[in-house]
Amino acid sequence: MGNVATLQKKPGPESGVERLAGLVADDMRRVNELILSRTGSDVKLIPEVASHLIESGGKRLRPMLTLAAAQMFGYGGEGHIRLAASVEFMHTATLLHDDVVDESDMRRGKAAARMVWGNEASVLVGDFLLGQAFKMMVEVGSLPALDVLSDAAAVIAEGEVMQLVTAQNTATTEDEYLAVIRAKTAALFAAACEVGAIVAGQGVEQRRALGSYGANLGLAFQLIDDALDYSGVQADLGKRVGDDFRDGKITLPVLLAYRRGDEEERAFWTRCLRDRASGEADLDRAIALMVEHRALEDTVARARHYGAMARDALGTLPKSEHRTALLEVVDFCVNRGF
Amino acid sequence: MGNVATLQKKPGPESGVERLAGLVADDMRRVNELILSRTGSDVKLIPEVASHLIESGGKRLRPMLTLAAAQMFGYGGEGHIRLAASVEFMHTATLLHDDVVDESDMRRGKAAARMVWGNEASVLVGDFLLGQAFKMMVEVGSLPALDVLSDAAAVIAEGEVMQLVTAQNTATTEDEYLAVIRAKTAALFAAACEVGAIVAGQGVEQRRALGSYGANLGLAFQLIDDALDYSGVQADLGKRVGDDFRDGKITLPVLLAYRRGDEEERAFWTRCLRDRASGEADLDRAIALMVEHRALEDTVARARHYGAMARDALGTLPKSEHRTALLEVVDFCVNRGF
Repeated sequence: MGNVATLQKKPGPESGVERLAGLVADDMRRVNELILSRTGSDVKLIPEVASHLIESGGKRLRPMLTLAAAQMFGYGGEGHIRLAASVEFMHTATLLHDDVVDESDMRRGKAAARMVWGNEASVLVGDFLLGQAFKMMVEVGSLPALDVLSDAAAVIAEGEVMQLVTAQNTATTEDEYLAVIRAKTAALFAAACEVGAIVAGQGVEQRRALGSYGANLGLAFQLIDDALDYSGVQADLGKRVGDDFRDGKITLPVLLAYRRGDEEERAFWTRCLRDRASGEADLDRAIALMVEHRALEDTVARARHYGAMARDALGTLPKSEHRTALLEVVDFCVNRGF
Repeated sequence: MGNVATLQKKPGPESGVERLAGLVADDMRRVNELILSRTGSDVKLIPEVASHLIESGGKRLRPMLTLAAAQMFGYGGEGHIRLAASVEFMHTATLLHDDVVDESDMRRGKAAARMVWGNEASVLVGDFLLGQAFKMMVEVGSLPALDVLSDAAAVIAEGEVMQLVTAQNTATTEDEYLAVIRAKTAALFAAACEVGAIVAGQGVEQRRALGSYGANLGLAFQLIDDALDYSGVQADLGKRVGDDFRDGKITLPVLLAYRRGDEEERAFWTRCLRDRASGEADLDRAIALMVEHRALEDTVARARHYGAMARDALGTLPKSEHRTALLEVVDFCVNRGF
């Protein structure tokens, strides 16, 4: 499945997120400088842990969305730089905390920070980054932007707790799973986009359009991530195929295969995921069951639904190269690896 | 589009909701008796108004769902009859109030109650039915069922207010519209199913599975209703094609056509729906624009997504004729008229 991507990928700067990256390149350089300067601390452990993750080459999709959302309305100020950095810090803090909760070993193809510096350092540096994120938001001085981002921070934390409670429960319904990823992933994508419109002085209609775009893009993004974990090409992932499985994560492909399977298959899923007693042969069987029950295919179909919603959300915004770039991001998200 | 349905419809008792209707037929007779006895009142206006709507031949899909959900777990008690009648009363009350708010003239192919007895009577008889619904729920004596149904009643009312606030706003996002129909339609479908499992003494997993089935079925049902309003065959609808349009209702086909249209088209939608200044030629243009922008097609595609979620929600429940019937209801909902 994975290598179909290479065939489908269009060449040139129009493909994937390159148009978006090009449009925000100058601002993004300033965001990166700000990120580096804001991870500085006399407490050496902080820049060490933070840089480990921040410099490990994430796509920085979320801050790019903030920058593009501000630029598309011709914003000429400075606030979007700090808001974009805040968004990336919130994301990084979540990753640090997630890896502790999930007991993950790897992140973006490297050892997870907690494997190098321990769980305590990961938790506390995550808190530090959250604190820095709030400081930067406050510096921008926009109460509506603060409102949206602080709300997202609360929702994300709520989502983490929700996930902890439903974790390893293979009987989780799709709606419950959607509620978790709406909180954990979609809320920050939505906020990232909406604060761009806010800082650019846009009204409620533009704010909502971008928030809706971001939320649905986030859902599509996460669902494709879920599917790629069982079908992706290693190199495209920054993580190994099957990491979610080994971590006992309940994701949509698992939910669908579990629900569509018979009793014996459900016992298999429960043993592997709830009891976390799985080996490499189990991963092969898991993938085979997903193929048999079309669980990966239908996860991608679900993602395409949210992708379609994201696209339509942008419909009322004026046509611009930025809007085109945001539409291409949806295509990139739903097509990567498939 | 509409007459394709006749070709696709399979003959025999397996098609549509007939299997479901057959399974619950005995119980449904008792629900109907209860409904009739509970609309009785010395205040003559009450049975008159209530019967006008109740006897006008709705499908009674919601109470059938409650009965089937209880029966599928082998429930042998009496509580599901009252709960099913409560659900139908809640639905009827909503219709009475909706027609007042929407200033609708017609309902199920007849004059709306408010056209015969006036707005005041419609509002008050709706309240009477809600009161009866609560009385019957309390008589069943299940606090968890009361919890679910009273929560649904509150959510429905919240949805009505939400709709009032967003009404006639063509710039409503799809997410906002979904929030409205989740509250107005999906919440009662979900509760109808969940209370069946509750009264049958089922645990949280079965409750959630049925609740999730109901919610997604409700979304699919409503979206197909939205599409049929612009494409259905008159006789299948119980209302005239274009009623939503004439009432200035913002539904998903409108939202999609609006978002995908140009400035001139948006001005057209705004004039017709917000300003409610439309004639029959406008309806033709509205349908033409929807066809051009694939708004009806994509509304059906969105509905199919929720239908697929509803189907998978039932996956963990034991195989039975009731489960098969519920799965057929999904097919019926998403295929009717298309």
